[in-house]
Amino acid sequence: MSKNDKQFVQEITPMEVDFAQWYTDTILKTDLVDYSPVKGFMVIKPYGYALWENIQSFLDKRFKETGHKNCYFPLLIPESLLTKEAEHVQGFAPEVAWVTHGGNKELEERLCIRPTSETIICSMYSKWLKSYRDLPYLYNQWCSVVRWEKSTRPFLRTSEFLWQEGHTLHETYDEAEKETIQMLNIYKEMCENLLAIPVVTGQKTENEKFAGAEYTYTIEALMHDGKALQSGTSHFLGQHFTKAFDIKYADREGKLAFPYHTSWGASTRLIGGLIMTHGDNRGLVLPPRVAPTQVVIIPIAAQKGNVMEKVDEIYKLLKARGVKVEVDDRANYSAGYKFNDWEMKGVPIRIEIGPKDIENNQASLFRRDLLTKGSVSLNNIEEEVINLLDDIHNTLLNKARKMYEEKTSTVTNYDEFKEVIEAKPGFVKAMWCGETECEKKIKEDTNATIRCMPFEQEHLGDTCFCCGKKAKKMVLIAKAY
Amino acid sequence: MSKNDKQFVQEITPMEVDFAQWYTDTILKTDLVDYSPVKGFMVIKPYGYALWENIQSFLDKRFKETGHKNCYFPLLIPESLLTKEAEHVQGFAPEVAWVTHGGNKELEERLCIRPTSETIICSMYSKWLKSYRDLPYLYNQWCSVVRWEKSTRPFLRTSEFLWQEGHTLHETYDEAEKETIQMLNIYKEMCENLLAIPVVTGQKTENEKFAGAEYTYTIEALMHDGKALQSGTSHFLGQHFTKAFDIKYADREGKLAFPYHTSWGASTRLIGGLIMTHGDNRGLVLPPRVAPTQVVIIPIAAQKGNVMEKVDEIYKLLKARGVKVEVDDRANYSAGYKFNDWEMKGVPIRIEIGPKDIENNQASLFRRDLLTKGSVSLNNIEEEVINLLDDIHNTLLNKARKMYEEKTSTVTNYDEFKEVIEAKPGFVKAMWCGETECEKKIKEDTNATIRCMPFEQEHLGDTCFCCGKKAKKMVLIAKAY
Repeated sequence: MSKNDKQFVQEITPMEVDFAQWYTDTILKTDLVDYSPVKGFMVIKPYGYALWENIQSFLDKRFKETGHKNCYFPLLIPESLLTKEAEHVQGFAPEVAWVTHGGNKELEERLCIRPTSETIICSMYSKWLKSYRDLPYLYNQWCSVVRWEKSTRPFLRTSEFLWQEGHTLHETYDEAEKETIQMLNIYKEMCENLLAIPVVTGQKTENEKFAGAEYTYTIEALMHDGKALQSGTSHFLGQHFTKAFDIKYADREGKLAFPYHTSWGASTRLIGGLIMTHGDNRGLVLPPRVAPTQVVIIPIAAQKGNVMEKVDEIYKLLKARGVKVEVDDRANYSAGYKFNDWEMKGVPIRIEIGPKDIENNQASLFRRDLLTKGSVSLNNIEEEVINLLDDIHNTLLNKARKMYEEKTSTVTNYDEFKEVIEAKPGFVKAMWCGETECEKKIKEDTNATIRCMPFEQEHLGDTCFCCGKKAKKMVLIAKAY
Repeated sequence: MSKNDKQFVQEITPMEVDFAQWYTDTILKTDLVDYSPVKGFMVIKPYGYALWENIQSFLDKRFKETGHKNCYFPLLIPESLLTKEAEHVQGFAPEVAWVTHGGNKELEERLCIRPTSETIICSMYSKWLKSYRDLPYLYNQWCSVVRWEKSTRPFLRTSEFLWQEGHTLHETYDEAEKETIQMLNIYKEMCENLLAIPVVTGQKTENEKFAGAEYTYTIEALMHDGKALQSGTSHFLGQHFTKAFDIKYADREGKLAFPYHTSWGASTRLIGGLIMTHGDNRGLVLPPRVAPTQVVIIPIAAQKGNVMEKVDEIYKLLKARGVKVEVDDRANYSAGYKFNDWEMKGVPIRIEIGPKDIENNQASLFRRDLLTKGSVSLNNIEEEVINLLDDIHNTLLNKARKMYEEKTSTVTNYDEFKEVIEAKPGFVKAMWCGETECEKKIKEDTNATIRCMPFEQEHLGDTCFCCGKKAKKMVLIAKAY
């Protein structure tokens, strides 16, 4: 071990030993994030922010393709606006941050930092909307929100996080419902096609829906440790807010009508899901389409012969094909250190090139997902790499699907449920009567929650697994982040 | 006048009558922005936000090309951090918003909403930086900031605005100085190549520099009404903050050293500058490269023959060449209404196509910058349009340059200055002794300020125009936003 290798004390606690510590070690040691001087607030470092930029770019493109435009509403919301929709204020008031002084003066009315923007946006929509001709309103904003959290973990639950929030108005119930589903499907598409995370789509229970919504749709993913992660939500708000904020328009018959309303959001929490779906004991495993660096080229014996020349040639070939490629030619680190470093950072493909490789017109190629090393001909290395990136994406998605299946159980009675939820962390499928009482009991007894009523329903029996009464819905239950 | 034309009461006060009212009418009636329920805070509507997205995209690309990476630091800064650099806190403390309560509890320490992020970023840099090998730090963040303002105007001065703030650390004084200049030049490039706004580059006086900076570079633009607009600043912070925040690293000799520090920012204020540089009495005039819609096609007698077919054909031709094109086929508005509407919105090119045009294998083409109408052959319309967009950009830039020259005067004594600054609004060039006393006197007497000491110095005489002592620098003076 060289002197530099000794500095490489980047130990990550094995996930089997302590999953939470594995997560913390991984995010800190790969420079994704850091704790800030304000408790519960995180600093997103460049490597972490690049992941967010890739998520943003995927979503923003899809939002625009589906007719949405971006805009920006104020950070601060007057208390009187926050309290206009009764359920909403109940849900959010306990967790907001209050601004009481501005420019050395006490404010006449407290302002909260937006925990979400329905109220301020509705106050503007109410001013703007006149006629059915103006509809639909299809607006989105990218911003940060603040929700004062007691116990926080970077990306997963923080007092400030970055997100997008879409807020749309429609003439009809049907059109708003279609929008709610459309946006949920875009989240699902992003999870599967960009992040290689399989998700279940479904509806939240009354108890778990957004404060002020008629109903909430969700995508739920499953993490390595068998816990669920709510990864995006799309709310059908009906006329709850449009009535509370008096948003009216002249309809096709010239009568005043209230529009139907949706909102939908996805946040930096997705980065937490990405880490806990694919990561392993060496650190991050990044799916190629979201990876800030897809390929790293490491010259071996760089000082010899034409090594750097060849490295540069391959770098340019890959770059020209749109591959995100980097060369690690740091002189003060050993090859072994670099291998560990890039593996920990989850870069999908590592290419090593030394004098011997060049003699044989080949390069070594390491796949982070399978931890396998092979060789690749230099003749068509760019084609090989591009195909391999797709293959790695699919391999990771399939692996995650398999994990999801292995960690999903079915139960028909409460004893079975209590045993399974402890013994085999993951999703539990069960038939449910639809009553809040059973939902509460489940949570009190096991700390697990009904994650959703999946759109893809199965018939597992006729009675509620909890109370034995007539079952209404199949639900997916899990302990969750 | 049709019934719909009557609805088109979109009067804009002529700028000669009341420039401030012209500005307000223009921004509100073109749907760029609206006032929000919180005094001094604006809502950026989709058409305004699209301008910001184009500015962002230009700058972000250039930042990345010059090696910068994006990251995200918390919205809230503890009071104890804000106060660490003495000049900085003096400058910013009077205008911050204070969060005193979070999650229903009073906080132990007040937190301010970032007015700028030097302090919180330095607190993190101090934790991260170890060795000269880690340098330079080249980081940027896109976010909103809050500075409590007494009198506000959308885009130009608001209590919250969107911006980017770059924060870099360097080994040497020279390298940091080069960075400061490089980023200022990127702002200048953006103003000229994207916004078609000519700018002067120069250094701020001691009095006008950023609170905590060693010196501040600025780009200054001139508006239609002869007032100056500071449009971007780049600060050489030296070791002021790195010493206050104890940011130290092991240098090449293994000794502890403080790095040199820069920060630089540009904001949504640029949109105000864009409007006031190019706008006219019909409303906005948007330079093509920043225009959300570059070309609008208006079908005439759309119901007849193959009009819509031809419109669609041209739309696709332009779209395929990357032109941002829209078709206005609203049935409930007259052609005249649409002409006014798109002119007011500043769309650079309007194409009209009716049955007669098609017979003659041509279309009518209206240039918003010159208010001229001509015809264009349908054979190579896409080439014509693409060339014309460049021509419009250049025409607007040249027009703005001419305005700048016409509104710039030279004075050699104080009486002359006082007369010129009132009689001929614009930049005044003069020789200055460098003393704060003269600077204060100018401001007190005329409300004008020294905008900068231009990099391109001219020798206009040997004595200060104000006090008659030995002159040190040529300065540019103006009333400013």
